[in-house]
Amino acid sequence: MKIVIIGAGNLATHMTKALKEAGEEVVMIYSRSEESASALGEKTGIPYTTDLSLLPDDADLYIFAVKDSALESVLSSVKPNSGIWAHTAGSVDMNIFKDYSERGAVFYPLQTFSKEKEVNYREIPVCVEAVRKEDEAILMSLASKLSDHPEKVTSEQRKYLHLSAVFACNFTNHMYDIASVILKENNLSFDIIRPLIKETCDKIMTLSPREAQTGPAVRYDENIINRQTGLLEDPVLKDIYKLLSKNINNYSKKK
Amino acid sequence: MKIVIIGAGNLATHMTKALKEAGEEVVMIYSRSEESASALGEKTGIPYTTDLSLLPDDADLYIFAVKDSALESVLSSVKPNSGIWAHTAGSVDMNIFKDYSERGAVFYPLQTFSKEKEVNYREIPVCVEAVRKEDEAILMSLASKLSDHPEKVTSEQRKYLHLSAVFACNFTNHMYDIASVILKENNLSFDIIRPLIKETCDKIMTLSPREAQTGPAVRYDENIINRQTGLLEDPVLKDIYKLLSKNINNYSKKK
Repeated sequence: MKIVIIGAGNLATHMTKALKEAGEEVVMIYSRSEESASALGEKTGIPYTTDLSLLPDDADLYIFAVKDSALESVLSSVKPNSGIWAHTAGSVDMNIFKDYSERGAVFYPLQTFSKEKEVNYREIPVCVEAVRKEDEAILMSLASKLSDHPEKVTSEQRKYLHLSAVFACNFTNHMYDIASVILKENNLSFDIIRPLIKETCDKIMTLSPREAQTGPAVRYDENIINRQTGLLEDPVLKDIYKLLSKNINNYSKKK
Repeated sequence: MKIVIIGAGNLATHMTKALKEAGEEVVMIYSRSEESASALGEKTGIPYTTDLSLLPDDADLYIFAVKDSALESVLSSVKPNSGIWAHTAGSVDMNIFKDYSERGAVFYPLQTFSKEKEVNYREIPVCVEAVRKEDEAILMSLASKLSDHPEKVTSEQRKYLHLSAVFACNFTNHMYDIASVILKENNLSFDIIRPLIKETCDKIMTLSPREAQTGPAVRYDENIINRQTGLLEDPVLKDIYKLLSKNINNYSKKK
């Protein structure tokens, strides 16, 4: 399969590497920025360009791994061709392709990518959707070469999947960050809490979050809750603490 | 060292096992409930009682692993003796012992315990404090037999440590729970998001949370933020989403 990658950010970088390792032929990389294009191009030995009009028009698959806000303008700048056009975004409907290609599709890896951190692509669910049934089959087969978790997910489901990922990943990381701020203010190292973070995550690999919930909020220990909100000087953190404690307790009653 | 364990909940259970495995002599277990006392007693082969007046008075260490709210009344029911008295609570000051023992202390394992899930005690930081310097040394030595992370932590620091643990563990788990509710409502399995949760946690083992932050809030992508709050029907979840997104963005400016 001849594949063109449009984009050279974290997601594009990890996907390009995974496709190459799976033996797929990535024929060209595009990035708006010369620096990103050459960085990824040179790392992988794949030809690169910063000019969308220079993309080959005979590839089987064009993967648009650009920022959501840039997607529409990039699509309108690529010359029509007969390949599959797939985007990689959690929050963008597949119908964004309707004016540009009859073979619109989605190839969305559900993961958090940082340039500095390697990931094991086999563990990443890759969510597939396509206008045409046969394209869906092609992309499911490609997804299964990269990952042990190829998944058919509709645009409607994907919106909510992305929303849940914001809670499970971005907001979770923010909880770590708040903990780190509190520790630092009290001359304690973030290292002291890393084992607790690891166990909190490990538990959830086998238990449901409802079963795994512990702490003062689920017991609704008002003594501790009041004392702890009193320790927080930042009014935003106070609000977060109260709101989450109340909701934990509400959920626990629905067990 | 002869040790008495007062309490038979999750924390007491895991600690009793760890002490036994480290070769310490746990001479008696107390629990208010016959059921818990006998369960832990029979599992470990240690004598147990439901009567505080039957505790031996010649042990070296009495570990009070009971609920915060029960601690004061339990302390007042134990006959004075010359052993070290240590509690295991994150949020209780060491001065709770002042009317009951001159050898008050704290032996606080920073972890989330569930009865169903084994933990590796060596990875758990054990936070030690004692009224007397020599007792602090005894407890640090005991902590190092159980754990690779014995830590001296003052009552003042411990309050904030426990607060940070509520964010990093209890509130983090609640983020998983909210994700799970959203997925379920959209006929998606919680399994699909487990790899993302794992990677979010793995990243934090080497990066700082500030470095690891990704998602629409840190980029302040208002398009996605507005669309996602629009998807949430529960007004509490809407508030949580907005409050956390705003705070993530504020933190990112302080990088």
